[in-house]
Order: sequence, then structure tokens, then C-alpha cells
Amino acid sequence: MLLAQAPDGLPEVTSSTDLAAALTPVLGGLVWPDGSTGLAEGDIVVVASKVVAKAEGRLRKAADRDAAIDDETVRVVATREYPDGSTLKIVENRQGLVMAAAGVDASNVLPGTVLLLPEDSDESARVLRRGLNARLGVRPGVLVTDSVGRPWRRGIADITIGAAGLDVLQDLRNQRDGNGRELRATVIAVADEIAAAADLVRGKTGGRPVAVVRGLGHLVTVEDGEGAHVAIRPPEEDLFRTGR
Amino acid sequence: MLLAQAPDGLPEVTSSTDLAAALTPVLGGLVWPDGSTGLAEGDIVVVASKVVAKAEGRLRKAADRDAAIDDETVRVVATREYPDGSTLKIVENRQGLVMAAAGVDASNVLPGTVLLLPEDSDESARVLRRGLNARLGVRPGVLVTDSVGRPWRRGIADITIGAAGLDVLQDLRNQRDGNGRELRATVIAVADEIAAAADLVRGKTGGRPVAVVRGLGHLVTVEDGEGAHVAIRPPEEDLFRTGR
Repeated sequence: MLLAQAPDGLPEVTSSTDLAAALTPVLGGLVWPDGSTGLAEGDIVVVASKVVAKAEGRLRKAADRDAAIDDETVRVVATREYPDGSTLKIVENRQGLVMAAAGVDASNVLPGTVLLLPEDSDESARVLRRGLNARLGVRPGVLVTDSVGRPWRRGIADITIGAAGLDVLQDLRNQRDGNGRELRATVIAVADEIAAAADLVRGKTGGRPVAVVRGLGHLVTVEDGEGAHVAIRPPEEDLFRTGR
Repeated sequence: MLLAQAPDGLPEVTSSTDLAAALTPVLGGLVWPDGSTGLAEGDIVVVASKVVAKAEGRLRKAADRDAAIDDETVRVVATREYPDGSTLKIVENRQGLVMAAAGVDASNVLPGTVLLLPEDSDESARVLRRGLNARLGVRPGVLVTDSVGRPWRRGIADITIGAAGLDVLQDLRNQRDGNGRELRATVIAVADEIAAAADLVRGKTGGRPVAVVRGLGHLVTVEDGEGAHVAIRPPEEDLFRTGR
């Protein structure tokens, strides 16, 4: 059974917030259907990149938005101009992620400001994991997630951009299916699937940027592991390096 | 709280299987943490396209795999040849979906055969919903899902290719964020996020092709609705019509 919930009660996060300290009472107060409370071994804490970035002080002035996008851009993947004069830029950003506007975000931040992504979301996840472990005595998997558009599909969905203590990709290539046939190409993007599941309970407008997912303890690891950057498709495998 | 589980016990599905009839005892036997059993209003039944296609008799001989892929292809999006002589074709198929090998599948089917996608997965979802409603007395949301690769990201993840009774896209464009700023571009691909959550509990090798997701009743609708085809990005919005 997979369980996921997004607690209320996280105070507004600013650059002076210690995120692990702010999350500790919120996660400690979780109540589960079996009557247990708090965080347990094998749980996965899924945090929107937005609050991580706020805690890391990644704000810039809104007037600098275009410059911020340019600064975060490593490579322009596609550009489109609209009749109203605005331009959509899909770019590879400094974290290696392909995102509209390089991940520079204007929603759920103070008027007059825009928010950059965390400098290194894998490191952010590791730091948060250590902080939660020190305070709560358990070692959850920790994911930092963001919403992205997708080619070919309408709507945005959440993916994992930072991870600690989780198998980001589940490699089933040595296993066999129910008919004994080898699963040759089957590597499951489990961290992205967990990000999507967490988004369903967090929502975009309710002030609940953190979710806890229970029931996937087989994916949680003692070591922090390689992080979410292993989910980025290397250029030589990538048939969609350039859009139009 | 979101709950998701994938029951055991579905018998092997063949072209003579009535899928709603086969699922009825399996879903009726579900046990939930609050002690309730079976399916309830607001639940979402998430079925792998594979079993839907099997029940619809969408098998072809493996020797015809390349011809089957060509038959299912409307448009070639990208092609890559590998040193071993094999070719990867990413195409738009007759269902409008962009997929490797047009969605023609060789895993978890009988040796010597390949499986096509359902002819019309939205209709498959509607039929299954009616059948479950007649037998179980509730009107769940029904999703038909498949695993796809993604540009820029490693690993496969599940998306929804057929839907009945669910808001496939959740449009938040008239709502405001916590700072009163309008969420201009925010349409959430909730059906794809539910598909991803369901994949986490179903797995690929355990013979559990069906999951039930509870806790998202606000997305379930009385009417069957437009179906999953609304999640396909129309060509004029699509910056990634062609890969290389």
C-alpha cells in the first residue's frame, strides 16, 4: 500500500529559515491510518524546489527576470514568439535540466521578485536529509521536485531534480516478466513517479509544499546515493536536443 | 491522504476475458486501512494498457513486429540506428501518442507474439467503467495507462492513454497563489501523475496490472468526460515535432 499526505502548518519560508528545523514539527505531527505518527524508516519526504530555493535565498528582482533566465541558461533548446510580443524559451539550465524559462519562477513568491532553482538540488536534498535525521532520528529518502512541461503532452507534471537516499532509477533489466522473457529496456523513473504522486496531494495553491510518501521503503537507501542528476539523459542518448 | 494499492489475483487475461467481470472479485476483495473493503465512490481504477489490449485480442505474430509498427505509425518523429544493426523508431501512432516502436510491445505477452495498443483507449476506459459500475454499484474513475520514455530524462514512466470519469487536466488558470498572484500557465497533468503513482504500486513483474487510487475523489466526474486524448499536445503547440 502506498500512502501519501501533505501536512499543513509549514510557516512561510525565507532565506533565514532552517528548512529541517521548520519541517521537524510539521513532519513529527503526521498521523497515519494505522494510528502511528511522525516519520518512519522507509518514508520519503518530497519537497517542492520552491521552498528549498527560498530557504537558500535564491531570489532576484523581477525586473531582472530576463537577465536571470539568461544567466541560468546553458543552451537554448527551443524558442517561440507569440503575437503579444512575449517569448517562450525552453532551455537547458545550469543544473542540466531542460525547462521553460530555465526554471526561473514567478508564482508563489513575493511580488517584485523571481526565484531561481537551488544551486545544487542533490546537495540540498542531502543537507535536508541530514537535518531531518539529526532531529527526528529516522533516515528518510528526500526528494526535491519541480513542475515541468512535456513535449507531446499537455499540462505540467512534477519531476525530481534533487535526491538523497533513494534509487532514482529502478533498473529491472536483469529481471524477467511473467512469461520468462527478459525485460531488456526496462528502467523505471521511480523518483519522477514519486514526484508526480506527491504533487497530487500537495497541490499548487494550498501552502503545502511538502509531502510524505510511505510504502516504498524498498527504494530508500542508507547511503545518499548518486542523486537526481543520474536521471538527466546524456546528450549522446538524446534524440530531442533541439526543438523548433 | 492518497492511498494506492495493486491487488493480486487477476487471472491471466486473454481475448476471451471480460475484463470488468475478471476485475470484479479482485476489486471487491480490496481491504483499506480504515477496515473498509472493495471499491468506493471517488476511487480511481488504473489499468495497464497491456491487459486491456489482451482482452481486446490485439495480438499479432512476433514475426510481423516491424510490419505491425509500420501499420501503427502515422508519423516518424525520430530514428536512430545502433551498431548492432537494430533501429529505434520513435513515432506518432494511430492513437496520436508519441512512443518508441509505436507502442507495439513484446514483454509480458506469450512468446511468438507482440501486442498492439487498444484501438481506442478512451472507449476501452468507458466500457470498463460501465462494466464495473454494473457489477460493483460504484462509478470509479477509470484510467488506461502505458509506460513511455521521455526526452531529456532517463527511464520510463507511466502516462494515461485512456480515461473515463476523470478530469485528465486540472486547470488552475483562474486561481491565485498564496501571494494573490494569478497562476497563468498552470494546467496540471493529473491523469499522468495518477498513472505514475499507480505504476509505483503495480510494478512490472508481479502480475498486478491494476491499481486503485483513493483520495482524489475531487477529480472524479459523473460524466465520462472527454477522455485522455485531450492530454495530447496539438501540433501547433508542439515545439518538438521532430527529433534527430
